[in-house]
Amino acid sequence: MSGKSLSFSFKLYKSLTKSSKPFLTKRLFQTCNRLSAAKIINGVALAKEIKDEVKNEIDEVVASGKRRPKLIVIRVGEDPASKTYVKNKIKACEYTGIESESITLPTTVSEDELLNLINKQNNDDSVDGILVQLPVPEHITERKVCNAVTPSKDVDGFNVINVGRLCSDQMTFIPATPAGVMEVIRRTGIETFGKNAVVCGRSKNVGMPCAMLLHADGKYETQAGDATVTLCHRYTPPEQLPVFTKTADILVVACGIPKLITADMVKEGATVIDIGINRIVDEKTGKTKLVGDVDFEEVAKKAGYITPVPGGMGPMTVAMLMKNTMMAYKKEINFD
Amino acid sequence: MSGKSLSFSFKLYKSLTKSSKPFLTKRLFQTCNRLSAAKIINGVALAKEIKDEVKNEIDEVVASGKRRPKLIVIRVGEDPASKTYVKNKIKACEYTGIESESITLPTTVSEDELLNLINKQNNDDSVDGILVQLPVPEHITERKVCNAVTPSKDVDGFNVINVGRLCSDQMTFIPATPAGVMEVIRRTGIETFGKNAVVCGRSKNVGMPCAMLLHADGKYETQAGDATVTLCHRYTPPEQLPVFTKTADILVVACGIPKLITADMVKEGATVIDIGINRIVDEKTGKTKLVGDVDFEEVAKKAGYITPVPGGMGPMTVAMLMKNTMMAYKKEINFD
Repeated sequence: MSGKSLSFSFKLYKSLTKSSKPFLTKRLFQTCNRLSAAKIINGVALAKEIKDEVKNEIDEVVASGKRRPKLIVIRVGEDPASKTYVKNKIKACEYTGIESESITLPTTVSEDELLNLINKQNNDDSVDGILVQLPVPEHITERKVCNAVTPSKDVDGFNVINVGRLCSDQMTFIPATPAGVMEVIRRTGIETFGKNAVVCGRSKNVGMPCAMLLHADGKYETQAGDATVTLCHRYTPPEQLPVFTKTADILVVACGIPKLITADMVKEGATVIDIGINRIVDEKTGKTKLVGDVDFEEVAKKAGYITPVPGGMGPMTVAMLMKNTMMAYKKEINFD
Repeated sequence: MSGKSLSFSFKLYKSLTKSSKPFLTKRLFQTCNRLSAAKIINGVALAKEIKDEVKNEIDEVVASGKRRPKLIVIRVGEDPASKTYVKNKIKACEYTGIESESITLPTTVSEDELLNLINKQNNDDSVDGILVQLPVPEHITERKVCNAVTPSKDVDGFNVINVGRLCSDQMTFIPATPAGVMEVIRRTGIETFGKNAVVCGRSKNVGMPCAMLLHADGKYETQAGDATVTLCHRYTPPEQLPVFTKTADILVVACGIPKLITADMVKEGATVIDIGINRIVDEKTGKTKLVGDVDFEEVAKKAGYITPVPGGMGPMTVAMLMKNTMMAYKKEINFD
């Protein structure tokens, strides 16, 4: 695999442009598709870039005498994956200078107790963002929990009002993973306008919002992608899936199936964004390792850009949560 | 054009089935694709069927001594198309036995005055449904007006909470046109599960909700279609549009462009649902006539099913508004 990290190019790009200048970005990267192997999008470097922007902003507000932003992370029970996710979020808060509080409740907590806790945080003026790590135990209704977080502190974007805002092209807290997808696309200078995008997976926190952000009108508040979008999912027949993935200039995969996307399913030069996080046993070493939904080794030879797993969309998701928390702190969204 | 109306078949279907039995429907219609011309879906007959169901239900509740459902229709200004739409809605209310009140405000009305009027209707317990005919004049913010209608009376489904509910697969007032699309599909016995659907047009009241209802999970409250869905729109390049439309088992078109969809763009046996309403001058007669977005004469020779314009989705939209008003009256949706 001969793909090189984009981190150097990003630094160059940042040094050449003060804000977003997609045209320049395009020119910088337009030669990439001529290479025989994909540019690997360095999610760790990109995430650091975003976290550094948040950190710099916080350093400034603190220097001016204001308080730090504050994020409350609530976790119910002892799901190991949830523990890891929460740990990574708290670590990013420490890095950026966001004050954080992690609250862990026992699996036996009642729905009312959880809702009361959320409500207490809603009414606490020193709290900017509230996040309940999903999933919650079965005796608690996930939708109720998501709607309990007041929209202006809902940094996960799961409150039904924020879902409605996103789907109405209104500025909102975009769930961190789809927000990360769009940020990767923009910062890498990948054109979406009039392109074909295919999203595999229709989850409400990843696939659906990705499809929304890729297809909708770029001139409205969400600054969406204006791409033609196909949404594939578990009931897309196996023989139909490649029919669509092969049309994709941008392929976003979030299914939770290792090696679902193979090289023959990908168009030459496409951008492939892999959101899968699967734990599998490495045949060579016998150890557990993380892989995405894309056959990375083979697809990287054909794609124009590709995100790796790990080191791709995972860190980006955490970085976008920091950005959302900063947005909440600055009250950038008008909920009237 | 040799296609025959489906009204007879529907009567047969209704006489054979008490509620929705898709399997039987499928068996009844499975021979259709063998014919060389499309079955024309009779929107007028289907709409009457739905309105009669609402009417029968209202007759029963009135007979039991309860009040009739009540719909308030608010129109601002003198847009001729809006006048026609409102007239058709009021007429359908009269047919079904829904009490209706049509309020017309001058173009000069202020946003506050309109919002106050909506609020008054929100607080009136004798009012079940409130509808503001769009568009509103430019000095009034459409989004504010839509959000002013309380979710439980929002029979148009335009309040951001109802948009969020729809996009979260929760039961809600589905905007009447996409609700009509799904109703036509179901009552005609057209399979969506695992099929390819293509929606042309990404409007928030038609294209987007159609894409949502066609792709999402059938086991949740919206009982969505489980189809693979492609959403095409104004920025889909002309040479790409047929690439996608030709994959469609179900093609939904809502663009406002006469003859956008020609026969060469349609797969043999596809279901073609035409939501376009365009006023054009008939070359033969010199008179103005209504046409859809599909080249009906030619596409009808190739499609499996097709909705005509007029007499297709227009009447269905009005009928679904009646159904939504009845849902509001019965408080069928739990907004907690």
